[in-house]
Amino acid sequence: MSNINVAMIGQGFMGRSHSNAWGQVAKFFQCPSKPVMHTVFGQEAENPQAFADNWGWQNAATDWESVVKSPDIDIVDIVTPNFMHAPPAKAAIAAGKHVACEKPIAGTLAEAREMAEAANKAGVKTAVWFCYRRVPAVALAYQMVKDGLIGDILHVRAQYLQDWADESVPLVWRFKKELAGSGAHGDLNAHIIDMTRFVTGQEITEISGAISETFIKKRKLMTGVASGSIAGGLDAGKDMGDVTVDDTVLFLARFSGGAVASFEAARQATGNQNRNGFEINGTKGSLKFDFERMNELEYYDATRPRAVQGWTNIMCTHAGDHPYVANWWPDAHLIGYEHCFTNEAYDFLCQIAGQTPTVPIPTFEDAYQTQRVLEAASLSAAEKHAINMDDVK
Amino acid sequence: MSNINVAMIGQGFMGRSHSNAWGQVAKFFQCPSKPVMHTVFGQEAENPQAFADNWGWQNAATDWESVVKSPDIDIVDIVTPNFMHAPPAKAAIAAGKHVACEKPIAGTLAEAREMAEAANKAGVKTAVWFCYRRVPAVALAYQMVKDGLIGDILHVRAQYLQDWADESVPLVWRFKKELAGSGAHGDLNAHIIDMTRFVTGQEITEISGAISETFIKKRKLMTGVASGSIAGGLDAGKDMGDVTVDDTVLFLARFSGGAVASFEAARQATGNQNRNGFEINGTKGSLKFDFERMNELEYYDATRPRAVQGWTNIMCTHAGDHPYVANWWPDAHLIGYEHCFTNEAYDFLCQIAGQTPTVPIPTFEDAYQTQRVLEAASLSAAEKHAINMDDVK
Amino acid sequence: MSNINVAMIGQGFMGRSHSNAWGQVAKFFQCPSKPVMHTVFGQEAENPQAFADNWGWQNAATDWESVVKSPDIDIVDIVTPNFMHAPPAKAAIAAGKHVACEKPIAGTLAEAREMAEAANKAGVKTAVWFCYRRVPAVALAYQMVKDGLIGDILHVRAQYLQDWADESVPLVWRFKKELAGSGAHGDLNAHIIDMTRFVTGQEITEISGAISETFIKKRKLMTGVASGSIAGGLDAGKDMGDVTVDDTVLFLARFSGGAVASFEAARQATGNQNRNGFEINGTKGSLKFDFERMNELEYYDATRPRAVQGWTNIMCTHAGDHPYVANWWPDAHLIGYEHCFTNEAYDFLCQIAGQTPTVPIPTFEDAYQTQRVLEAASLSAAEKHAINMDDVK
Amino acid sequence: MSNINVAMIGQGFMGRSHSNAWGQVAKFFQCPSKPVMHTVFGQEAENPQAFADNWGWQNAATDWESVVKSPDIDIVDIVTPNFMHAPPAKAAIAAGKHVACEKPIAGTLAEAREMAEAANKAGVKTAVWFCYRRVPAVALAYQMVKDGLIGDILHVRAQYLQDWADESVPLVWRFKKELAGSGAHGDLNAHIIDMTRFVTGQEITEISGAISETFIKKRKLMTGVASGSIAGGLDAGKDMGDVTVDDTVLFLARFSGGAVASFEAARQATGNQNRNGFEINGTKGSLKFDFERMNELEYYDATRPRAVQGWTNIMCTHAGDHPYVANWWPDAHLIGYEHCFTNEAYDFLCQIAGQTPTVPIPTFEDAYQTQRVLEAASLSAAEKHAINMDDVK
Repeated sequence: MSNINVAMIGQGFMGRSHSNAWGQVAKFFQCPSKPVMHTVFGQEAENPQAFADNWGWQNAATDWESVVKSPDIDIVDIVTPNFMHAPPAKAAIAAGKHVACEKPIAGTLAEAREMAEAANKAGVKTAVWFCYRRVPAVALAYQMVKDGLIGDILHVRAQYLQDWADESVPLVWRFKKELAGSGAHGDLNAHIIDMTRFVTGQEITEISGAISETFIKKRKLMTGVASGSIAGGLDAGKDMGDVTVDDTVLFLARFSGGAVASFEAARQATGNQNRNGFEINGTKGSLKFDFERMNELEYYDATRPRAVQGWTNIMCTHAGDHPYVANWWPDAHLIGYEHCFTNEAYDFLCQIAGQTPTVPIPTFEDAYQTQRVLEAASLSAAEKHAINMDDVK
Repeated sequence: MSNINVAMIGQGFMGRSHSNAWGQVAKFFQCPSKPVMHTVFGQEAENPQAFADNWGWQNAATDWESVVKSPDIDIVDIVTPNFMHAPPAKAAIAAGKHVACEKPIAGTLAEAREMAEAANKAGVKTAVWFCYRRVPAVALAYQMVKDGLIGDILHVRAQYLQDWADESVPLVWRFKKELAGSGAHGDLNAHIIDMTRFVTGQEITEISGAISETFIKKRKLMTGVASGSIAGGLDAGKDMGDVTVDDTVLFLARFSGGAVASFEAARQATGNQNRNGFEINGTKGSLKFDFERMNELEYYDATRPRAVQGWTNIMCTHAGDHPYVANWWPDAHLIGYEHCFTNEAYDFLCQIAGQTPTVPIPTFEDAYQTQRVLEAASLSAAEKHAINMDDVK
Repeated sequence: MSNINVAMIGQGFMGRSHSNAWGQVAKFFQCPSKPVMHTVFGQEAENPQAFADNWGWQNAATDWESVVKSPDIDIVDIVTPNFMHAPPAKAAIAAGKHVACEKPIAGTLAEAREMAEAANKAGVKTAVWFCYRRVPAVALAYQMVKDGLIGDILHVRAQYLQDWADESVPLVWRFKKELAGSGAHGDLNAHIIDMTRFVTGQEITEISGAISETFIKKRKLMTGVASGSIAGGLDAGKDMGDVTVDDTVLFLARFSGGAVASFEAARQATGNQNRNGFEINGTKGSLKFDFERMNELEYYDATRPRAVQGWTNIMCTHAGDHPYVANWWPDAHLIGYEHCFTNEAYDFLCQIAGQTPTVPIPTFEDAYQTQRVLEAASLSAAEKHAINMDDVK
Repeated sequence: MSNINVAMIGQGFMGRSHSNAWGQVAKFFQCPSKPVMHTVFGQEAENPQAFADNWGWQNAATDWESVVKSPDIDIVDIVTPNFMHAPPAKAAIAAGKHVACEKPIAGTLAEAREMAEAANKAGVKTAVWFCYRRVPAVALAYQMVKDGLIGDILHVRAQYLQDWADESVPLVWRFKKELAGSGAHGDLNAHIIDMTRFVTGQEITEISGAISETFIKKRKLMTGVASGSIAGGLDAGKDMGDVTVDDTVLFLARFSGGAVASFEAARQATGNQNRNGFEINGTKGSLKFDFERMNELEYYDATRPRAVQGWTNIMCTHAGDHPYVANWWPDAHLIGYEHCFTNEAYDFLCQIAGQTPTVPIPTFEDAYQTQRVLEAASLSAAEKHAINMDDVK
């Protein structure tokens, strides 16, 4: 088995998830090539050497441009804050590297489209870390829809609800448009747009209406340094600053196959800590998923005898029957959040090696399509009317 | 205890629920006056005498106008098909009777407004059978919001999803605009609009976007007579007819207190048999209700110590602590669908007697407000833009 | 349709349930004969006339012996406190009446056996109000086991857990051996013994071990009169009296078909308000029932493809597919506690008329078998060894 | 930070879990010393070098005795099949090593007692991999009981139900007494005995009755080699062999604090894939845990106002508030099965370094106490009477 060298650009919470994935993947999966954790980039203030030592990266670097261009590197994995995704991704494509990038891949829709085209032209493989596709339950949902078990899809409901952002949380980067791009919309709706595109196999054709709202318009300025939590750092002074992103975005949509849909992202949905999920109703059956119970998929089979119809709670933990499971633990032993990243790392290695991944990988083209939907929804909220997706390129 | 004479106009599935309520209420509740089941009206083909004999109505009649005007009658209760609600209701108000009416009270918004005004001017008491207010769990939710346990409400999600209307169901009255007024919208959204207005204590100020869709556009023509199921009669021939109402309506909205909201009604939401519910997220807590588990209310108390925070499943079956329960069975013994009607009958008797009902009764004014929201949502779906509620009278 | 006259001996909480059943049954079911609520017996202090007026009994009486013998009466229904079940039941059998009796039918096992034999010899029909057999979900479970869907039964777990009996509850009749016979054992284990005998179609052959415990050994003496709650009356003085029944009884058992089983009844199982249920594991599938969600049955079908196996939550509310439902409300509209009594009243009327009841009725013979198991479990707890059921007659 | 060298004796499914734990612990936790994966032992046929290469062990060995005695080794971790636990454990103690051992530590109760005494005398630290103590939800339950939130414990129910062992499974080592010691009893009951001893802080004083049963008495002989699943290898011939262990063991017990208890282990409990859990009812509250939803703890707080009492579903995923969580992912991101091992590895390193572990570690003394209960329950099942724990040493 040959080696394949990975460089990671960035650290933070996501850097931990990705480092874990690159470190674990070859222990649990029969990879087509063995990923070597070659170099991690971080700013000097972040002490990348300590990060490298902890996670097993062979080298630490503070100059991402030379890392990305280095002939030693085969895969560039990007986990920097949102505004810093595109520059290394573009440089990596230009250098002919395979690129695995956190979302959003770009700050503007035009840039995303260009990047997707550039990657295509360069013939490099791309992956975006829409890793919820690789929750076994979600991958199973994809397969069930594809196999026709759900019939024609009529309804899609998706929501990603969190509740960490009450008034006590200071003005971390996630609340600043120049750093984050958007609030709950890009952070959370992006995931459920990708997940429903993936599971349904359809594209969104219309945004039928939208609401964007910022409930908490001012927050305490931060004084400390961000670290590995979602909120990113909680040292705050007394001075207040403006929140320049949304707290919540809801929108209605239509899918190419005729389904009607609702989407909602929120950061103050009390009691919903990480409720990233969907419900899909079809003519033959329905599916429900909630990341708070990520090992389970709810399935309603409307073709069963009426007397025994009901929602079936599938524990998606059976080797052979459920995707990815054979590589982890014996049947009925749960996996957690980080396993999705490891599963994606494995599939990306397969893709690079010319093998078919377990389920399709979200590419830069997928990220562009998701970004189109995000942009159209923002437009709909601002202009208070429906948006035909054909008008958003 | 004095008697109070009730006449019921109509029969069908709803006639059974109402008859049961009027027959049971004085057995379980200490009513301010004893309701006498005086007269039931039905068309001759419906055989109202048989209905009267079965349910204990003292008289059967086939001429509703004389029933409504009769000096013997104190309360007129209307359960006819939708298009036949307004005529007897208006006649009853004109005759100075108290009126309990199934929704919608009128075929047009203007008519609903006139009826609310007429009732007000006549000084009669009105009740609309938005009976889900009287599920103990929903009444408790109302009280908890009012008591400030939820704090400021930021998010409202409401849905009433059913799945009975697949292609096999023929063209019953519920699919015809001239008889039903609308489809899932008036049938189902009406309930969740009333329920969320009730629980939040707020009005909807904007429809931010909407979708209306009819998935099944043609159905087999009926040959049989409608009877007491939702679908109303399943004898069908081979000829097809047009469905002239919606199958599903989704809309986004804003509430007067600042909350953002989503609503959805559907008749082909496979697996959702009677999922009539809401979720409300506030700054101090959240509430969730689902009529499929009508004896339960989910409560998230965000003021509890973090280590023990979670969704609490309240079984709303405790005498004294939960509304209406003391009148039924010992603690922790469930009640069912029909009890909501009996609870409403009791509260309406209280209202008529000048006593305060357990929780506020939905009046004709409430029905008018709900109808405004329905109309605005339809407009938004048709015109593909947001509607300011001030523009809909 | 001919009339059939019912006399009810007793009042209280159970008297309300039974009165409701006799009053409702002919409204919802096509009964073979119409039950007439002829006479209710109560002690003078209980004011049976007021009870009769409220519930619609035509006559009130304070001499049960003459009621039971009266040629006007066809069915004697017994709802007195436990120690007063046998005398009127025996008198009714002697008078050739059909008897519907609350459990336990007798104070001793020998008496129960004699009563079962007497009823058999007299050719009268008997019913015991083990009414949980007539929860639609439980009746469905019975049918599914009978149809072979569960395969060979290997495990039975049953529990009836309540939590109303903390220290604040005074010494009501339920805590006195001379009035109640036993505590949680006879009150609660009796139900789950009958329910598992019913659903499995098997008899218990061995009590393999048991625990009986009284956690609260002294309680405040009551000063008030018992009324319609489980606890029966809460006026208490300062003086204390001895609790002479158990608070909890657990036992292990074997069924005639080879299954192993555990049973538990408890009155201080905090958080379990009315958790009356079972789980049955078979070679082809499993079933779970919990009365706190009485409209639902959980079914695991081990013959389904592995990828979609899981616990299916069946909402047992479909006319035609689920027992009794067609007589109540449209699909997916829940019923409550009292409906089980009405369902049993209907089936008993069928039985008397020579028709087959929906599912088998628990007879005096069934009550005797259940009482044998209760007695054997008590013996096992006292003597600390296993009991072969053949040794308990 | 100093290094501490670990040798692992054995491989298999458990060897994977342990290797993962030793590899991950220093990446996620601030360990008092850095564990070095020094040597793994395996039989030649198992190819320990390949295992070492995959998991990052520096050396592979086929002679466990020299490994255990090696001056390079500080911790000996034992994951061999059950009958091979005691020999290396005793040798390691004799060599003055700290020992982490899979359960059961010994084949007989006497041997377990001797080993506990020997470890104590030698002054080495011991840990048994009763790793479910280190599920955050279980550790939280321990803390809540200790803090008095549950009050006096009255009821303990524990079960570990699996369903993998139907007739198709061949005669793997888990079905042979000479290799496994016992069946479901030692495999599964051992875990719930330890878990309830841990959470309640009490000892079992009496086995009040028990059932032991083997449903499937003959199985196909294996022809293949066992590998990393629970069933261990599925290649089977036509010849049949005897199952010499139990399939299920149920027993009733009393705890030192007065609680009554039931325990059940089963391997054919269809639909219960890995249902390892307990329910504890106390005078102030109750707790429920199920490993199939290992990130959740159900808590009933009986001191809350009655109107809002209910089971609260605590997602045990909050840094600071819930044990171990701060070391893993941001709030509300689930962990899986293997994290319990990593948590235990961390706590054992703390213990060795003289620091207080997060919650108490199960020592050889704990393993001995659990083995006493297992033995007493077997005795009770065989002799069909209650066993006083004082009589089992």
